[in-house]
Amino acid sequence: MGKPKKTPRPKAETPKGFRDYFGAEVTQRTEMLRKIAGVYHRYGFDALESAGVETVEALGKFLPDVDRPNEGVFAWQEDADADKPGDWLALRYDLTAPLARVYAQHQNDLPKPYRRYAMGPVWRNEKPGPGRFRQFYQCDADTVGAPSVAADAEICAMLADCLEAVGIERGDYVIRVNNRKVLNGVMEVAGLAGDDKAAERGIVLRAIDKLDRLGPDGVRALLGQGRKDESGDFTEGAGLSALQTDKIMSFVNSHFEVGNKLAQEAARAENEGNDERARQLHHARYSVEPQFRDRDEKELYGKQRKIWNQRVIDHLKELIGGTGVGFSGISDLQEIHDLMTSAGYSDQRFLIDPSVVRGLGYYTGPVYEAELTFDIQDEKGRTRNFGSVAGGGRYDDLVKRFTGQEVPATGVSIGVDRLLAALQAKGRLESEAQGPVVVTVMDRARMSYYQELVADLRNADIDPDDPSKGKIRAEVYLGNPKNFGNQLKYADKRGSPAAVIAGSDEQERGVIQIKDLILGAKIAESATLEEWKDRPSQFEVPRDQLVAKVREILAAHSPDGGAK
Amino acid sequence: MGKPKKTPRPKAETPKGFRDYFGAEVTQRTEMLRKIAGVYHRYGFDALESAGVETVEALGKFLPDVDRPNEGVFAWQEDADADKPGDWLALRYDLTAPLARVYAQHQNDLPKPYRRYAMGPVWRNEKPGPGRFRQFYQCDADTVGAPSVAADAEICAMLADCLEAVGIERGDYVIRVNNRKVLNGVMEVAGLAGDDKAAERGIVLRAIDKLDRLGPDGVRALLGQGRKDESGDFTEGAGLSALQTDKIMSFVNSHFEVGNKLAQEAARAENEGNDERARQLHHARYSVEPQFRDRDEKELYGKQRKIWNQRVIDHLKELIGGTGVGFSGISDLQEIHDLMTSAGYSDQRFLIDPSVVRGLGYYTGPVYEAELTFDIQDEKGRTRNFGSVAGGGRYDDLVKRFTGQEVPATGVSIGVDRLLAALQAKGRLESEAQGPVVVTVMDRARMSYYQELVADLRNADIDPDDPSKGKIRAEVYLGNPKNFGNQLKYADKRGSPAAVIAGSDEQERGVIQIKDLILGAKIAESATLEEWKDRPSQFEVPRDQLVAKVREILAAHSPDGGAK
Repeated sequence: MGKPKKTPRPKAETPKGFRDYFGAEVTQRTEMLRKIAGVYHRYGFDALESAGVETVEALGKFLPDVDRPNEGVFAWQEDADADKPGDWLALRYDLTAPLARVYAQHQNDLPKPYRRYAMGPVWRNEKPGPGRFRQFYQCDADTVGAPSVAADAEICAMLADCLEAVGIERGDYVIRVNNRKVLNGVMEVAGLAGDDKAAERGIVLRAIDKLDRLGPDGVRALLGQGRKDESGDFTEGAGLSALQTDKIMSFVNSHFEVGNKLAQEAARAENEGNDERARQLHHARYSVEPQFRDRDEKELYGKQRKIWNQRVIDHLKELIGGTGVGFSGISDLQEIHDLMTSAGYSDQRFLIDPSVVRGLGYYTGPVYEAELTFDIQDEKGRTRNFGSVAGGGRYDDLVKRFTGQEVPATGVSIGVDRLLAALQAKGRLESEAQGPVVVTVMDRARMSYYQELVADLRNADIDPDDPSKGKIRAEVYLGNPKNFGNQLKYADKRGSPAAVIAGSDEQERGVIQIKDLILGAKIAESATLEEWKDRPSQFEVPRDQLVAKVREILAAHSPDGGAK
Repeated sequence: MGKPKKTPRPKAETPKGFRDYFGAEVTQRTEMLRKIAGVYHRYGFDALESAGVETVEALGKFLPDVDRPNEGVFAWQEDADADKPGDWLALRYDLTAPLARVYAQHQNDLPKPYRRYAMGPVWRNEKPGPGRFRQFYQCDADTVGAPSVAADAEICAMLADCLEAVGIERGDYVIRVNNRKVLNGVMEVAGLAGDDKAAERGIVLRAIDKLDRLGPDGVRALLGQGRKDESGDFTEGAGLSALQTDKIMSFVNSHFEVGNKLAQEAARAENEGNDERARQLHHARYSVEPQFRDRDEKELYGKQRKIWNQRVIDHLKELIGGTGVGFSGISDLQEIHDLMTSAGYSDQRFLIDPSVVRGLGYYTGPVYEAELTFDIQDEKGRTRNFGSVAGGGRYDDLVKRFTGQEVPATGVSIGVDRLLAALQAKGRLESEAQGPVVVTVMDRARMSYYQELVADLRNADIDPDDPSKGKIRAEVYLGNPKNFGNQLKYADKRGSPAAVIAGSDEQERGVIQIKDLILGAKIAESATLEEWKDRPSQFEVPRDQLVAKVREILAAHSPDGGAK
């Protein structure tokens, strides 16, 4: 018999594609979701939380986005019972598939229409990549059982309110609205309506969806024979005729055509001496390019977006108003426009945008997305638009697989990580400098005294005039107290605003030393206690002034300044 | 070739042992966890959120509770790569195993000691039962790397603050504290100290843990030859001698022995004419049975618990103070007692309780649990104590499997569902009657007007003098508006406090009908519009009084009354 093998130690690692979130990363997201939930709730949406685990049968095995049909789920088979094989279970890959199951299961108990919101992790068994994780948050709101576009308009308005609630200012976002029926109308005028043209339609939709990235020439190539990209890879085109391609490009170029018309109209107005009208039309023309303007200009131009939106609808009527489906889609857009403006959501906050596609095959009516219109630096240092942070639309096959019924539904999903990144970029997240006051330990035998001090701090309001700011965050140092320098290094690592110091001398004299660590941060590395005592950032106060002095230091470092 | 088989429709069901949570079930839990997170944060604990998925290797395959070693995890194997088999992944079964992995993985970046809190779902692959689900929430706080019992005392104090923060009043809970070293001391005096006695120790600990359920006689039987329960099932005993059993029973009966001593002392004091002292001693004696007292009595008796706690420590000294480990455990208890009282946590809020065991094998020092001391009716209508809602203790092998180092840790886990049930029982949860105001639809063509009304409500503070109460929750009816009765049934199902009614007549006259639905709830079932209009619970107000009137109705039905 050989020697027993020593079991190797397990590796302390997350599985590939998973990660840990620490401190402010967690609390900032929680706070953002809380604000969004507040808006959803105010709009009459009810919370729903289903489990992370569903049966594969109920979930459906693949993701809805047929662009990437191979995206998988994490699935496993339960142990068999005596008489039957175990069920296949899987982690949910989104929050819509569970909604379908919940609605089919509980429909007799749910109000109709059913407005629900859900927020929580979902899992995808995909190849992880940079910034692409296999568990991430989704934050959805859907209305089930409401066929009217009022439901879509409501979600667009709610999306705008959500963005403002979390700190995106008006003018820094736009809700882009389109309708899949408009796209179907375009297919019809281009002769791509029949069941036998599904493949071509797929290529065309994918091409339109890439307008932002490829530009009009790239889209045109994909509509025709195909396109070679910079790396030399060739993408097969839809093989449309020149006439078909022109029809679709006139749609794809709506933005340019509407812009040109406005420019011509403005020129006419100028010739006629109507400068005010000319100015309005110019502003309308530029109202869709807010990324090139500062906030004041955004306001100014945004005010004329009503003209732009109406011109886009007119343009669509010219192009596809003759088809039944196109006409219906345009009417929907007009109605959404009217409902939103009635509810006080001016055109400045939304944009009728025929280039919005939102994936393939899934949506059946209005589609919408929230775009942030301020600039950020990308990883290569180039200035670019922040882009989309939420999207959704109407889909009508929600519960059909379960019940056979068609139940209309419309809903939005907010990209939690993207929106957090946006708030980070705008400096809208609570500072990470929220470390606790650290009560240092000069003498282990005096631990009861330190507990008394720390309890005093924790039970005190940060601002006695505003209890909503909460109580002082504070802790006693619990490591080995021998090396005082280590305690200060610890406080530094914790981002502590202040350290409290009380040795036998202080206790006898009834005083406390309080060190302002933000002032003193730079010298913390190698300081000894004696050095610290001589710094002007350290204060000796009577024991009963502990809370008052700490409050003063916190106020001095709070975002709203504080004259010390 | 046969006919193609029709695919049967999938079943719309959660997997066995999983469930959905709706509306207030979700928001009440979220709000409770937010309050707890606030307390954890104030104590200097940092949020940590790890993924639901870990490698089986990092997780360890089995649950720490050796009482139920067969509890499993949900696990699956990843697809193989070209050159190696796929990793085994699993859903976390608690929040402590991931903490161990996180600490081992990130220890160079984490402060030491590291205080962290975590809250989120965990999964157990167990047989589901009534009230026992395979996904549930945990809510933990742990301090890693602090060997001092100050860390344990801090967590006990924090636990008390958490309970009060969520709405459990002082006097309605007690933090019970013990030390596993005390239990080890008992084993030593009973001659059960050696490695060869591990099996007996296991039986003894399990028996002590069942004191609440079996009573002293049941425990005694388990220490001896064994015990037959009511159903006739026999449980093998530890087979201890009478002397051994007596030693352990004297420990198990600490409660009775201390009570008897206090009774004798009180009798002596009475005889000596010292009535005040006698009263104190009686109160001390009954301070541990708060379930039999009303709140005022609880206060009165609780004030003397300091005497009780000290007598328990004295009793333990007599029993096991002669063993090294027992003496050390008692010193720890004394220190925790002193630290908590220094921090202002009077003896009323905690109890030195030698019968606290907290499972087997896992803990190495202080153990603690939070018990709610108010009565509830159990499912059979019997009055009983609510019982434990949180527990934890010190364990020292947290990261040893990863790194070989012993790192001391102590932490608590709050039973989220139990605590929610307790708040429910005490009426401490926000009422579920938080339905939205429903703007009804008399006329589809007037939808823009209804959007205007609902937006007015949503943008209005519930209480203009207190914006912290939030804005009015309101929605437009989005179902088929034809049958007005259905709209009122819908509002009823939603728990709406009020319905807003505006037909062409009202709009022309510039007025709005507002129906107080809480007053009118009983007649909603079959009412027609005309009937409703005549009820005194319905009001006609000018359009510009919409918000004011709705505010009035909300105030009248708010928990703090409101004189209408």
